[in-house]
Amino acid sequence: MIQSKIPKRPQVRTTLAVGSLLVALTGVRTVSAETALERTAARLRDRALASPIAWQLLESLTVEVGQRFAGTSGDRAAVAWAEAKMRELGLENVRTEPVTVPRWVRGEARGRIVAPYPQELMLIALGGSVGTSGISEIGATGEIGGTGEAGIEAEVVEVADLEALEELSDEAVAGKIVFFNKRMERRRDGSSYGETVRVRSRGPSAAAAKGAVAVLIRSVGTGTHRFPHTGALRYADDAPQVPAAALAIPDADILELQIRRGGPVRFHLFLGSHTLEDTESANVIGEVVGRERPDEIVLISGHLDSWDVGSGALDDGAGCAISLGAAKLISELDTAPRRTVRVVLFANEEFGLSGARAYSEAHRESLGKHQLAIESDFGAGRVWRFAASVRSEAMVATENLAKLLAPLAIVHDRTGARGGADLLFLHPARVPIADLTQDGTHYFDFHHTADDTLDKVDREALAQNLAAYTTLAYYAAEIETSFFPAPERPEQPRR
Amino acid sequence: MIQSKIPKRPQVRTTLAVGSLLVALTGVRTVSAETALERTAARLRDRALASPIAWQLLESLTVEVGQRFAGTSGDRAAVAWAEAKMRELGLENVRTEPVTVPRWVRGEARGRIVAPYPQELMLIALGGSVGTSGISEIGATGEIGGTGEAGIEAEVVEVADLEALEELSDEAVAGKIVFFNKRMERRRDGSSYGETVRVRSRGPSAAAAKGAVAVLIRSVGTGTHRFPHTGALRYADDAPQVPAAALAIPDADILELQIRRGGPVRFHLFLGSHTLEDTESANVIGEVVGRERPDEIVLISGHLDSWDVGSGALDDGAGCAISLGAAKLISELDTAPRRTVRVVLFANEEFGLSGARAYSEAHRESLGKHQLAIESDFGAGRVWRFAASVRSEAMVATENLAKLLAPLAIVHDRTGARGGADLLFLHPARVPIADLTQDGTHYFDFHHTADDTLDKVDREALAQNLAAYTTLAYYAAEIETSFFPAPERPEQPRR
Repeated sequence: MIQSKIPKRPQVRTTLAVGSLLVALTGVRTVSAETALERTAARLRDRALASPIAWQLLESLTVEVGQRFAGTSGDRAAVAWAEAKMRELGLENVRTEPVTVPRWVRGEARGRIVAPYPQELMLIALGGSVGTSGISEIGATGEIGGTGEAGIEAEVVEVADLEALEELSDEAVAGKIVFFNKRMERRRDGSSYGETVRVRSRGPSAAAAKGAVAVLIRSVGTGTHRFPHTGALRYADDAPQVPAAALAIPDADILELQIRRGGPVRFHLFLGSHTLEDTESANVIGEVVGRERPDEIVLISGHLDSWDVGSGALDDGAGCAISLGAAKLISELDTAPRRTVRVVLFANEEFGLSGARAYSEAHRESLGKHQLAIESDFGAGRVWRFAASVRSEAMVATENLAKLLAPLAIVHDRTGARGGADLLFLHPARVPIADLTQDGTHYFDFHHTADDTLDKVDREALAQNLAAYTTLAYYAAEIETSFFPAPERPEQPRR
Repeated sequence: MIQSKIPKRPQVRTTLAVGSLLVALTGVRTVSAETALERTAARLRDRALASPIAWQLLESLTVEVGQRFAGTSGDRAAVAWAEAKMRELGLENVRTEPVTVPRWVRGEARGRIVAPYPQELMLIALGGSVGTSGISEIGATGEIGGTGEAGIEAEVVEVADLEALEELSDEAVAGKIVFFNKRMERRRDGSSYGETVRVRSRGPSAAAAKGAVAVLIRSVGTGTHRFPHTGALRYADDAPQVPAAALAIPDADILELQIRRGGPVRFHLFLGSHTLEDTESANVIGEVVGRERPDEIVLISGHLDSWDVGSGALDDGAGCAISLGAAKLISELDTAPRRTVRVVLFANEEFGLSGARAYSEAHRESLGKHQLAIESDFGAGRVWRFAASVRSEAMVATENLAKLLAPLAIVHDRTGARGGADLLFLHPARVPIADLTQDGTHYFDFHHTADDTLDKVDREALAQNLAAYTTLAYYAAEIETSFFPAPERPEQPRR
């Protein structure tokens, strides 16, 4: 199962040899074990900062694969790309692990204001939405809203948010299209996303429960460009499934301004969305096998899938490129780290966390052997925050790690880590997690839109990410101290 | 024909009365005629700078009309809007003048790289392009490129520009899709547009003459967002008409990077574009009738049409709003200016200058009575440059005008004016023209794309525009000195 180490690149050997020589010349001969770890980690950090590898990987993924939504041909191409790329990079134990994924098809989306002032608006179906010819019976029989192949036409009722919807009577909503007109604030930590995205995930069923025939939302994003923002909705079991779409922000402005003029506003919506049979995808895994405790795992990850619009450079091509690049740089060391560094590129994060669930099930027996799990899934802005949730005996180690990260302008947040979405199912097993939080100031300008493309990534910021993740992964894999188990934590709300 | 002056708004009277009172109190009683003109112009300038009217008009046009491409229902709605708005503003002699316009239908546009790495790319048909099922015989019989309802598939040959195309043999181009991969530079004065747009206007026929079956271009724009840039092509009489489309800039990057990988790249293009019968549109005209020389005209203008994508806030909703707003502010003066201020909102600038041509023909007899013509058609960035082409005896007047504009941070360029595109047919009659050139640094991020929407306009910059145009129009209408005729000028290249 565990293959022998691959040959090291001569160039790297030379660099390290020069490093050893310098140690010799300066007379620092009695280096403690911890100091050696930190010196190697610092060298690796600085090498990563100058490395183009993350950019090269991200360019390759976006140019040679592009969109890779779960279950599409792009998804299959991405799995093949990842497996081939891991082998090309010289990772060990390269393999795919099967994941069953849903297969939702976006289809065409068209929307227009019919009255008072006719205008076509740009919109996009929310992930998982039914089409306008497939809405369930309760919605379809609404007296006001017409339905069928040609779409739905109904009067629009605007609400600020879920709470405002609840204040309306069912009569005020029945037969209408509910427009959730909630604005998302720009914040570095993206915390406004969680507050705003509830209208996307819960809004359709909340409106349908009151008799709405369809739902429109103002895109959950901060961009001012005309790209509507998709993302998954969640239908409740006890409400009809109605079609739901997000308007681009300039288009939501137009709808809002027509509503402000006072009279009734009628809207026509066509969505060709539908769902096919589940299909197969895969988590793609490769490793740098540990020299002393190969069964102990430092998991570094991103998700390989993207939405079906854009080429997913930020979400989450960057996380894949950073994880692969970090493993590659660690594999180039003269000596493999104590533990195994495992890259996991998760399948289908976007539309149900299928890959994360499959990993936690397939590796249930060995979750106690996970020293640390980290995921990069917040774009490629500069990392500004480090946090870790490890056992209390390992706190000194995280303080030392923070010192290694400080030259990258990363602060140590001691309140603990949240972890990426794909790590969610590892929490019950108390797998230690860490965060290297990216600057998300501009992330939601592009996230889940067709505009998430390579040119939105800053090369230097990506290299800083690579440096941070490589340092953390190496340090956790090499250090004597065990991080397991993480403190007990309350269940987090799902993103 | 010339109606009596409309009643003035009491509020404005009060403001001017206070102004007169201040003059009285400060003892400045012996005001020369020119000084009075300059004082009123300065007051008008400052009032315009504080006025929300241009923004209100632009919001109204974009929210209540939206796209208004020549010959569409939006075009008809825009004409109705403009006529109603002019009456609402209290302009005189409000009327439409008929303009015959072509009727080109964009239809659906789809493109994808077939090999080596399949990807859907975002593109848009160039204005006037034939569809992929309508290409002429020479293109359709190419051996390599297949054609028909399902689109065209062929190998891509990349060229930097028209000159590079000419260096290729016909054999290298025949049966292929030519990809013009020319980048546009960002410049404040937009001068790079003229240099780059040649591949759009002339590229399709130049490629077809060498046997190409279709043409792709890198969008002629500076935006990094995923909006392809449309605009008119011009088919030559002596080459087959082949379908032509512009790739969004991130998509052109992907095509370029796949080509850089070395192997042949195959592309599939579908365009549903087609042309219908010509139809009717109109120039919409309203006036503030001059008190002494009502037959002498200061023409202020924008074009009412837009492309069929976006709501044409920058191109050229802003020009319409500025022209209407300037006339409104001038109409609110206690005393009408000496000459008539005429607002002309031209039909179909974008797809053939139909309205400009019709105006010059309908008003041929009175072009010698045009004191000045100005057009705002370069977005709504702050005006930074003033230039005028008037008879030499009026040079002192333009110097005084420049002093009035200086507080708006506008410099005087004494090399002469170029004039907006709609003024082109006025040049042979030596109609004096002026420029108030907007800062175009970001104009081509949005120009001719779906992203040209209201939110791209800065309210304060729009008010500065209004102040500049109002000052210029009033000054030219009021001053004793005649500006006619402009110096003889060489024919300018068409934009």
